[in-house]
Amino acid sequence: MLIKNATYYDGQNIKKGDFRHGLSDEEFDASGKFAFHAFHNGHTHLPMTLMRGAGEGEKLHDWLNRTIFPMEKRLTADIVYKGAMFGLLEMIKTGTSSFIDMYYFTDEVARAVERSGIRGLLGTPITDFGTAYYKDAYDALNITEQRLKDRRSGRVDLCIAPHSIYTCSEDVLIRSKELAKRYGVRWTTHISETRKECVDCHKKTGMWPVEYLESAGLLDKNTILFHASWLTKMEIKILADSGASVVHCPASNMKLASGGVMPLPELLSAGVPVMLGTDGVSSNNSLDMMQEMKFGSLLQKSHRWDATVANAYTMMGIATAGSKDLAFVELDDFRMLPHHDLIANLVYSGGTVTDMIVDDRLIMKDRNILTFDEGEVKEEFMEAAAELLG
Amino acid sequence: MLIKNATYYDGQNIKKGDFRHGLSDEEFDASGKFAFHAFHNGHTHLPMTLMRGAGEGEKLHDWLNRTIFPMEKRLTADIVYKGAMFGLLEMIKTGTSSFIDMYYFTDEVARAVERSGIRGLLGTPITDFGTAYYKDAYDALNITEQRLKDRRSGRVDLCIAPHSIYTCSEDVLIRSKELAKRYGVRWTTHISETRKECVDCHKKTGMWPVEYLESAGLLDKNTILFHASWLTKMEIKILADSGASVVHCPASNMKLASGGVMPLPELLSAGVPVMLGTDGVSSNNSLDMMQEMKFGSLLQKSHRWDATVANAYTMMGIATAGSKDLAFVELDDFRMLPHHDLIANLVYSGGTVTDMIVDDRLIMKDRNILTFDEGEVKEEFMEAAAELLG
Repeated sequence: MLIKNATYYDGQNIKKGDFRHGLSDEEFDASGKFAFHAFHNGHTHLPMTLMRGAGEGEKLHDWLNRTIFPMEKRLTADIVYKGAMFGLLEMIKTGTSSFIDMYYFTDEVARAVERSGIRGLLGTPITDFGTAYYKDAYDALNITEQRLKDRRSGRVDLCIAPHSIYTCSEDVLIRSKELAKRYGVRWTTHISETRKECVDCHKKTGMWPVEYLESAGLLDKNTILFHASWLTKMEIKILADSGASVVHCPASNMKLASGGVMPLPELLSAGVPVMLGTDGVSSNNSLDMMQEMKFGSLLQKSHRWDATVANAYTMMGIATAGSKDLAFVELDDFRMLPHHDLIANLVYSGGTVTDMIVDDRLIMKDRNILTFDEGEVKEEFMEAAAELLG
Repeated sequence: MLIKNATYYDGQNIKKGDFRHGLSDEEFDASGKFAFHAFHNGHTHLPMTLMRGAGEGEKLHDWLNRTIFPMEKRLTADIVYKGAMFGLLEMIKTGTSSFIDMYYFTDEVARAVERSGIRGLLGTPITDFGTAYYKDAYDALNITEQRLKDRRSGRVDLCIAPHSIYTCSEDVLIRSKELAKRYGVRWTTHISETRKECVDCHKKTGMWPVEYLESAGLLDKNTILFHASWLTKMEIKILADSGASVVHCPASNMKLASGGVMPLPELLSAGVPVMLGTDGVSSNNSLDMMQEMKFGSLLQKSHRWDATVANAYTMMGIATAGSKDLAFVELDDFRMLPHHDLIANLVYSGGTVTDMIVDDRLIMKDRNILTFDEGEVKEEFMEAAAELLG
């Protein structure tokens, strides 16, 4: 596509003029708009939009047992699809064109992503205990392998997603990694999110979580680790040597009071690829990556007593890592004025995303999503949320 | 005004139906909208919208000396007026109907507030050193007293605003308090924002900052203190006994890496009145009180390793303290769905404010500000920002 009359950030500098993006011959008039790489949300549980605001103010254990788990027992394919569609609406409206997701009824999430026009890397969470979607971890591995046999390359791709080292046996973790290698797909898991998880791992294995992953042969350049909040220096070195990526989820870590703060500057210095993610809406409660950049930056500055770390450009880099798409905001959006520093405005002040081009195709124009009916998606979502409340 | 067909939060519960607000006979149809008390921003430097994004990533000292102070030397009445008008636009768009401000050319800020239709409590920052607005602190006290002689009650009111204990001599602080008492107005200052300020005060006086204020007779129920991030238990007790109020500015404290976190639960338990504030745009970089509520809540949870503190209702309480006005968001705003907990949605997910009623008058309707021309204000603001860059 030919983007005309734009002000744009190419990842290094702000430029003005026309530029080519993708292969199609279409033109897009970006007069009065600021273009930037659309956001890549590195960690979501997309259908949990259904649970936004449910069980607020409960302690983690009560929240899971009284609110989330009973709701998840009532999940159906139809509810998940409607929750995913609404999550996609929220992501498109806030400038996200790709994401890494972990949720049940993964086929339904895939169907929703196909329809939305954006990109998703989707995995089924694998746990030793059964869920509404499978009997046990081995059943989950079977379901995952069936899907991998049908895998086609495109906007929707699949990954392997054992939930965590504390909900999967070592046998399940290793088998899941073998599956990832056999099919050449990425392997993802939650790691070192809470201090309890780290201490429990050390008690049981004599190793910290990342050491443990390494000893079990689970780390390589196709590994993506969510949270990584509680890390030792030794673990940062192991990560750097392995080529594995990590995903920072600052708002979720803060809201759940997990205490740990990802050592972002040390990971970046060591050359570990870092992405930014919102986590599920139930613990954030938003999928807005602009807001997440501000939380990430301010959490680092505040935690480290250093106003110079995690600046706007660093945050923009980790929030758009690998992005192939474009998002636009109006240059005279009140959150974007004045124009001393457009990237600082985007990170610290925000802006309303008006347009998005994904895979060489305009999927939102002047605030209107072109790939589905917004009103219908909202209505069906509200019905699904009511059904889930029981 | 009669508000019809509303879903509304009265500060205690969510209700549905019609309700009366103010004295006029007009009707406002709130079908499909959620009404709540408009926000009261407890601490701003309004015209600093002009400096949003200027000198990002510089250390505090460099930022002040290289960026902010040279800009402030070029301030004129006209530039301040245009910066204030744009700040008012941003506040109205994000649901704020009243604020406490500290800035130079205070007459111009007052003129802008009058035009905007919202409420402002305005003070001239008083410092021993001279500024573009006055020669020295005694000149600033004179200017302030002249304005107090002309004071009329209304949407715009005046307060006394010595900048801080480290930029004002004790004589100036005490004279400013005498002025506040003589004219029966509130007395405000920045306090205990950084560790350096506290340590310097202790070295010089043998007292922590709040103790020092008390010893100088500066604390009473008309005192409002900004930041109060670094407090001892003894100072909390002094505050509670005095009746003074404090304003929490979480995003600014985090962005400037001041290290301290206001002991919010302890202050609330002690009965100290707490407000929420954004501080100036140059250190936030936003005037959005919904975002500020989320920062406040998540900072407390994260800092204290306790997911139950500073919940959504607490934040809504301190963000709307004393508010007499109403703001509205659409119930089907994607950030407000689903409806498990509308207050949690507002605090953690946000929403676009569509309407606002201030002083019994509709000043924004369906996202359009009725009291001034938005395009004209933006254009004049951009000219003023360019002039300020020099």
